[in-house]
Amino acid sequence: MAKSTGLIRQVFFNGCLVPEHEAKISIYDSALMFGDMVFEMTRSYGGKQFKLKEHIDRLYTGLKILRIPLTMTPFEMEKACYETMEANQHLFLEDDEHRLMIDVTRGLLGIYQNIEGAEPGPNVLIADFPLRWTVSKMSILFKEGINCVITNQRVIPSDLMDPKIKNRSRLFYLMANIEASAYKGSNNWALMLDTDGFIAEGTGCNFFIVKDGVIITPEGRNILRGISREYVMRELCVELSIPCIEKNIEAFDVYTADEAFVTGTPFSMLPVTSLSGVQIGNGEVGPVFKTLLKQWSSNVGTDIEGQIESWDSDHMVSCAQDAPTPYSFKSPSTS
Amino acid sequence: MAKSTGLIRQVFFNGCLVPEHEAKISIYDSALMFGDMVFEMTRSYGGKQFKLKEHIDRLYTGLKILRIPLTMTPFEMEKACYETMEANQHLFLEDDEHRLMIDVTRGLLGIYQNIEGAEPGPNVLIADFPLRWTVSKMSILFKEGINCVITNQRVIPSDLMDPKIKNRSRLFYLMANIEASAYKGSNNWALMLDTDGFIAEGTGCNFFIVKDGVIITPEGRNILRGISREYVMRELCVELSIPCIEKNIEAFDVYTADEAFVTGTPFSMLPVTSLSGVQIGNGEVGPVFKTLLKQWSSNVGTDIEGQIESWDSDHMVSCAQDAPTPYSFKSPSTS
Amino acid sequence: MAKSTGLIRQVFFNGCLVPEHEAKISIYDSALMFGDMVFEMTRSYGGKQFKLKEHIDRLYTGLKILRIPLTMTPFEMEKACYETMEANQHLFLEDDEHRLMIDVTRGLLGIYQNIEGAEPGPNVLIADFPLRWTVSKMSILFKEGINCVITNQRVIPSDLMDPKIKNRSRLFYLMANIEASAYKGSNNWALMLDTDGFIAEGTGCNFFIVKDGVIITPEGRNILRGISREYVMRELCVELSIPCIEKNIEAFDVYTADEAFVTGTPFSMLPVTSLSGVQIGNGEVGPVFKTLLKQWSSNVGTDIEGQIESWDSDHMVSCAQDAPTPYSFKSPSTS
Amino acid sequence: MAKSTGLIRQVFFNGCLVPEHEAKISIYDSALMFGDMVFEMTRSYGGKQFKLKEHIDRLYTGLKILRIPLTMTPFEMEKACYETMEANQHLFLEDDEHRLMIDVTRGLLGIYQNIEGAEPGPNVLIADFPLRWTVSKMSILFKEGINCVITNQRVIPSDLMDPKIKNRSRLFYLMANIEASAYKGSNNWALMLDTDGFIAEGTGCNFFIVKDGVIITPEGRNILRGISREYVMRELCVELSIPCIEKNIEAFDVYTADEAFVTGTPFSMLPVTSLSGVQIGNGEVGPVFKTLLKQWSSNVGTDIEGQIESWDSDHMVSCAQDAPTPYSFKSPSTS
Amino acid sequence: MAKSTGLIRQVFFNGCLVPEHEAKISIYDSALMFGDMVFEMTRSYGGKQFKLKEHIDRLYTGLKILRIPLTMTPFEMEKACYETMEANQHLFLEDDEHRLMIDVTRGLLGIYQNIEGAEPGPNVLIADFPLRWTVSKMSILFKEGINCVITNQRVIPSDLMDPKIKNRSRLFYLMANIEASAYKGSNNWALMLDTDGFIAEGTGCNFFIVKDGVIITPEGRNILRGISREYVMRELCVELSIPCIEKNIEAFDVYTADEAFVTGTPFSMLPVTSLSGVQIGNGEVGPVFKTLLKQWSSNVGTDIEGQIESWDSDHMVSCAQDAPTPYSFKSPSTS
Amino acid sequence: MAKSTGLIRQVFFNGCLVPEHEAKISIYDSALMFGDMVFEMTRSYGGKQFKLKEHIDRLYTGLKILRIPLTMTPFEMEKACYETMEANQHLFLEDDEHRLMIDVTRGLLGIYQNIEGAEPGPNVLIADFPLRWTVSKMSILFKEGINCVITNQRVIPSDLMDPKIKNRSRLFYLMANIEASAYKGSNNWALMLDTDGFIAEGTGCNFFIVKDGVIITPEGRNILRGISREYVMRELCVELSIPCIEKNIEAFDVYTADEAFVTGTPFSMLPVTSLSGVQIGNGEVGPVFKTLLKQWSSNVGTDIEGQIESWDSDHMVSCAQDAPTPYSFKSPSTS
Repeated sequence: MAKSTGLIRQVFFNGCLVPEHEAKISIYDSALMFGDMVFEMTRSYGGKQFKLKEHIDRLYTGLKILRIPLTMTPFEMEKACYETMEANQHLFLEDDEHRLMIDVTRGLLGIYQNIEGAEPGPNVLIADFPLRWTVSKMSILFKEGINCVITNQRVIPSDLMDPKIKNRSRLFYLMANIEASAYKGSNNWALMLDTDGFIAEGTGCNFFIVKDGVIITPEGRNILRGISREYVMRELCVELSIPCIEKNIEAFDVYTADEAFVTGTPFSMLPVTSLSGVQIGNGEVGPVFKTLLKQWSSNVGTDIEGQIESWDSDHMVSCAQDAPTPYSFKSPSTS
Repeated sequence: MAKSTGLIRQVFFNGCLVPEHEAKISIYDSALMFGDMVFEMTRSYGGKQFKLKEHIDRLYTGLKILRIPLTMTPFEMEKACYETMEANQHLFLEDDEHRLMIDVTRGLLGIYQNIEGAEPGPNVLIADFPLRWTVSKMSILFKEGINCVITNQRVIPSDLMDPKIKNRSRLFYLMANIEASAYKGSNNWALMLDTDGFIAEGTGCNFFIVKDGVIITPEGRNILRGISREYVMRELCVELSIPCIEKNIEAFDVYTADEAFVTGTPFSMLPVTSLSGVQIGNGEVGPVFKTLLKQWSSNVGTDIEGQIESWDSDHMVSCAQDAPTPYSFKSPSTS
Repeated sequence: MAKSTGLIRQVFFNGCLVPEHEAKISIYDSALMFGDMVFEMTRSYGGKQFKLKEHIDRLYTGLKILRIPLTMTPFEMEKACYETMEANQHLFLEDDEHRLMIDVTRGLLGIYQNIEGAEPGPNVLIADFPLRWTVSKMSILFKEGINCVITNQRVIPSDLMDPKIKNRSRLFYLMANIEASAYKGSNNWALMLDTDGFIAEGTGCNFFIVKDGVIITPEGRNILRGISREYVMRELCVELSIPCIEKNIEAFDVYTADEAFVTGTPFSMLPVTSLSGVQIGNGEVGPVFKTLLKQWSSNVGTDIEGQIESWDSDHMVSCAQDAPTPYSFKSPSTS
Repeated sequence: MAKSTGLIRQVFFNGCLVPEHEAKISIYDSALMFGDMVFEMTRSYGGKQFKLKEHIDRLYTGLKILRIPLTMTPFEMEKACYETMEANQHLFLEDDEHRLMIDVTRGLLGIYQNIEGAEPGPNVLIADFPLRWTVSKMSILFKEGINCVITNQRVIPSDLMDPKIKNRSRLFYLMANIEASAYKGSNNWALMLDTDGFIAEGTGCNFFIVKDGVIITPEGRNILRGISREYVMRELCVELSIPCIEKNIEAFDVYTADEAFVTGTPFSMLPVTSLSGVQIGNGEVGPVFKTLLKQWSSNVGTDIEGQIESWDSDHMVSCAQDAPTPYSFKSPSTS
Repeated sequence: MAKSTGLIRQVFFNGCLVPEHEAKISIYDSALMFGDMVFEMTRSYGGKQFKLKEHIDRLYTGLKILRIPLTMTPFEMEKACYETMEANQHLFLEDDEHRLMIDVTRGLLGIYQNIEGAEPGPNVLIADFPLRWTVSKMSILFKEGINCVITNQRVIPSDLMDPKIKNRSRLFYLMANIEASAYKGSNNWALMLDTDGFIAEGTGCNFFIVKDGVIITPEGRNILRGISREYVMRELCVELSIPCIEKNIEAFDVYTADEAFVTGTPFSMLPVTSLSGVQIGNGEVGPVFKTLLKQWSSNVGTDIEGQIESWDSDHMVSCAQDAPTPYSFKSPSTS
Repeated sequence: MAKSTGLIRQVFFNGCLVPEHEAKISIYDSALMFGDMVFEMTRSYGGKQFKLKEHIDRLYTGLKILRIPLTMTPFEMEKACYETMEANQHLFLEDDEHRLMIDVTRGLLGIYQNIEGAEPGPNVLIADFPLRWTVSKMSILFKEGINCVITNQRVIPSDLMDPKIKNRSRLFYLMANIEASAYKGSNNWALMLDTDGFIAEGTGCNFFIVKDGVIITPEGRNILRGISREYVMRELCVELSIPCIEKNIEAFDVYTADEAFVTGTPFSMLPVTSLSGVQIGNGEVGPVFKTLLKQWSSNVGTDIEGQIESWDSDHMVSCAQDAPTPYSFKSPSTS
């Protein structure tokens, strides 16, 4: 793969590098026709990718279940990730972290494969951009905590469309975000129930409570089983000897919890200090959260909260005006 | 809008025309991030668009509910459709029909809007390609009829993600198609139940039965309310004085029906002659179906079945090797 | 029944009149133990009770199904209502209307019946107070319309606790109101779905849409079948020759409606001009609503909107600080 | 708080003591309008309150989730309980136990707050009466055991109205009792399933089975998590080294259990010897039940069964004619 | 088919006549292995079979959906029915009616087909016995009416096992009967809800209510669509100009109905005068019921009620000791 | 019981022995009327019955819950099994194993008990036939593994009809088999979900996966709790120190498992190597399966796979033409 020398970030596209603004998917691709795409989004700490292998494994699980016939191997995928980062490294600031977005599409639907100049697919794209885009506005959340609001929008049950496959048919995430945006106050993030009435997940994060010294997170059924979720459960909690279990929980359990928090790749962890305006515990960022975040920071050699705070204070990225929601969106009132 | 003079089909893209293979969506677009796109697919009869206004109305209903802040008016949208067709007309054969695909995306997520060269959106794309791509392999179905198979995959209930908004978060359609492709025999199309156990829809078509002279189609709840479905119900049946009602139906009702058929824009109507291998009525294409199709053909001045048959016989389009399923897909066994 | 001569409103209590502040229920009454009370709330127009017989009929239906062994007959109940109003008449302003609240409780639980001074029950209470308390702050809603918000709180299915019996186990109404109070903006009223995802009712009102000249209201299953709802359906619409049907409807149907409104005894009808912030029709009070309200006003000889406006403008009743929600409540942030 | 000297039991009411028959709630209180009340019912053993702090904690959890803005602290609440008992002590027999009922209501709805003489609320009431009222007729159940009947009435799912908040919107409890009262034979108590078909709870008691030496009780989702239930699980079973787990159970598990029993504050524990007429185990009171009850009696220094038997034999309380059901009610056939 | 001359009733068995006590199914037959049998039960009026063709049609619908490969035609089936009756005629009393039971089994499972002397199947059996067996104890019900009790046992949803196919996997009917038998009083028949909480059917009868002059019966989804139900809806009501509709109904609708009744082949119609002990209408047999029964009697030339009464009064058949339940069963307490 | 000396296998029938082809159930028996029969099917290893006591215990659990008043004791039942085998022993080949089928029916419905020559019941039948009938065609499955297909047919929830009672109302098993038979390829077995979307069971087998060294099988709710399932969980896994847990699993868990297998009495265990055509693990028979089967074979002194292979190779039983499905059936296309 030829090394990029340009001034514009490059995106891996089926073995080539293309400028970021040309990283596009044909409108005839199954990805756009059906939301039929498997993807991953990763990050680095101190420039080193975190749990990249785990992300790639999850990607290939999705490909297998969706029967997307990708011939590229996981090893080749990993190699391509590193090459993409290398090609863009000169465009990153010294304090930047690399956020990778790996997209795999099934490719053109059969009936569109004669289109001139079209690649049949499957298609693999790997984008590499500064993590600060995503998180620079979140530093306040480490201090004030999120107010989760339980939306009327519920998650789709896994037997209808499995959230454990990280796919792009997630319009309901966006609908939940729209709903949360109508609430008074700030720091509101959508928290969705499943159709059994159990807490499922946020629109891009996993949810945890702490009760009597035990960390509890919803069973891995109607959620994306996040890599950060796994890291907290299987590594941080083991290191710190904090018991951590998976269990169906309800709003009641959140109201009566001592602490709550969410996990997600870009920000690692964020505290949740209230549910629908009712404070959780004493309404402040809790000690278990702090202990976990400190250990995580130590493990990856990065002051996670401090780094995000530093990105926020220099105001370099002005576009993310609505970043405190997990994924911002445009709607009539904001356009 | 400048007239295209090239040899390649052009796609309308936010007011410009671009070559078809450049009709692409940024990977940072909400359309790819969330399956967050509203779309329509139309067709012409004898070169004249059929129910274009109705398609555009439905498109704008979806935009409204999803809060996509499109400033382009329905009138401008319609005009753009006609200009796109005009631009491509010289590339169509005389016996071709125009299939339009109108895509509207919300555009780049907020955090990605600083990407160099990126258009913030919303984005409007109008593609125009020969209808024969989609339907040329379907002529046998007019004669033999479809064997519907009820898949384990059920539709997503409308209160979780509303199918009445024609959107792109439809991975479950693809899963149903994969399931149907595992059945013995040919002409198998997936027919999905809703979570109440009622017949909902195919993966791209509406379903009807005929019983004792009455045409019955599922209530318009957990389905896309197809333009062709509306045409049959509100126009053809009125013209022909055939009673037509919306009603929850079950597999039992299909097994005991006199006839069954599906409707869809590209093929108008196709007969369904068996359900999971058990013949419906006498297992042949029924008289009500024939009457409706004849009237439809007459109304639009096109021998609908004959036209598709003619496209099939000259084998001009070889790509659509798997056309008899409503939307073909690539999977490990076919790649 | 002795005529009251005092300065304080009197409440009918098992055949006697007691001062309003002594109209209380024992904490040992099944009404407080189980929410086990059947009730009605009525109003007058021009001093004349509206549909009192229908209210009393509904009350007795509830008593029958709950097996509350009341010996008082419907005729005696009606008589008691009139006597109660007569007793209080001198305390009402000339432009006041009478709002009656009829409560019937089963009485003391068996194990508490030896309490000294306690009446075993069943108990019948009829309170009579100025309607302006309830509605004086609603006049703005006739002009601006309500913004309905679909809450996460859904109604309890009728096979678990039947809303068609007007009972007092309705804590979930209050929870929906709390939820709606957290939304930005004003004029927000909770609109609840049933567990099938259909629009059910507000917390004290029935919901209607108007589409293509037809008035549609949810089927009478998971709702209280309001007397006002019946009046619109069976009388006003008949008088005005407007077709009116009961049908399961969803949010989609509201978004695509021409108009929407709610009915409730105290205010008769109020327009709904948006759903979760998205305008319905052109976002203004619609012509069908206006026609119905005008006819209703004419039928009862009262300018319904004008009367409420007059009560609002003279600011005589300062207590109803939060009246624009259907039933106000106290919560930590307002106390 | 002034000491009562009268001959009538006194009830704590917002800091004052009022005679029991004046312990009443205004009909304009949210408690009667919506079943919007949080409450607790406790008991003493040997005159000493049992788990009073745990009851008060649960009370305040409910207040928090329902957003009832009570300013009284848990400590003040506890103090008020003791003062109330002290005020009534002289009215209790030597062998009596104190049953406290703590009620907290939100108070008058906003629109009714101008009523003369009305207290706005929230209101706190603490009643204190002899436990024998509730349990004197239950002594036969310690010997014969309860026959649980699974009613058609199911519990309301916790995401619609959470039973873990001890509230007064429980008309469905009463409906289940009515249903159970129609069964042949005696000793019939209603046992309700949740909407998933799992055993939930009785109408005022928690359910347990014993199988192969393990005590099993339904998960704490769709039930009130009883203080007695907690005591059995977290204290008695630990003391006695009997494994005890929470697990979804079904009728099948009850039919095949070795023993079954219920727990509830007034009676502590009662054996269940049959389900819908089919005997559980050998149909007699089981050894695990006896062991637990013996330990409980020992821990509280009271012969629990003997005490109830003594209350029954002297027939002092004649009102509780229908006590063997958990909560008696009046209906047409018994009035 | 040879004419039977014996003294014992003969049963048609695959073209032969066998004595009734030899009309048996092999334990290796799919009918016993899976409850895999389609059947019909008919009756005569005045010796003439009623709606035999309709019964046979329904039988063949079931065979088709279950894919039972019967080669015998409906015409041959009808002929066999008549021949069977003819063979048994001499054993019937003059005032007897013929109850036919037609059973069709798939036959031996494949792995058992080598059993010596076994017929592979499918098997057709037609039994012919006196209707009085079934109904002689029901005459009291024409006078007193049935008390329907809503059982906890609900019907199986049609998408799991379709009740519209009259099959033998109906253990849940028996469970409902056992449940109903535990109720106090007499004349109790089980009435089952479906899993949506709507009234479905009895265990062998269809349910109707009468409200404001309209006859209403549950939609034909989760029920057997009885031949008698069809006769009432499509013939009797048409003759008598009584409007009759299919509609989802609930317990509430029954409690508030003017009348209720059930239909079933052996007894034609029976009044339902109470629901769970609460009287329907005035608690007496209603005028609409009487009108329908009179017309039915007239149409078939038989005094339906009188005939059953005559069978009861002469006490000729002593076996039917428990006939007032729709289908009697043996259980520990009755054996 | 008199010893049989004949040439035909004998079946135990209420204390007598009857020839196999006369082992039949009256069409008036509740077993045929309602699918109201409890049964067991066992096998021997090396001629010695395996877990016969456990089978009989499960049988009596079913009898208890269904209230079938059988007076025969479990001990007598066991004795009858041995006597039946002894009576047939001379008809078995040396390498045969005994498959017992124990059927218990409630007997004739009350209204049919006067039929001449009929036994009232309950009836007990014990058949004894060569196991090879059932399994001889399954030897290929030990090598290639089963392809499980998830059918649209789901299991009936246990609160509607409990699968833990081994009963004969299982028409839905047959429907699932018909559905699976329509799939391309061979070795397809139906795997049913429950209505919550969890994997339940096959039509005659329990399902297991192996993941990271742990064996996981669905919770025992909506399944028959197979004796072989218990043996694997409670004995084999203990002996081999392989952790084995019960847990709700989904299709996702199967796709991502290392191995999968089913258990069932006739074949003990069979490997599952793919799910709906997607290979599980590496798509080959896995080491955990092999270890378990080896231990099982060792424990019972029988080479389980080898024995089945030997029965297949000598082709003595030609009837089982469709044996690779769990229970073969006849349908129009195969008759």
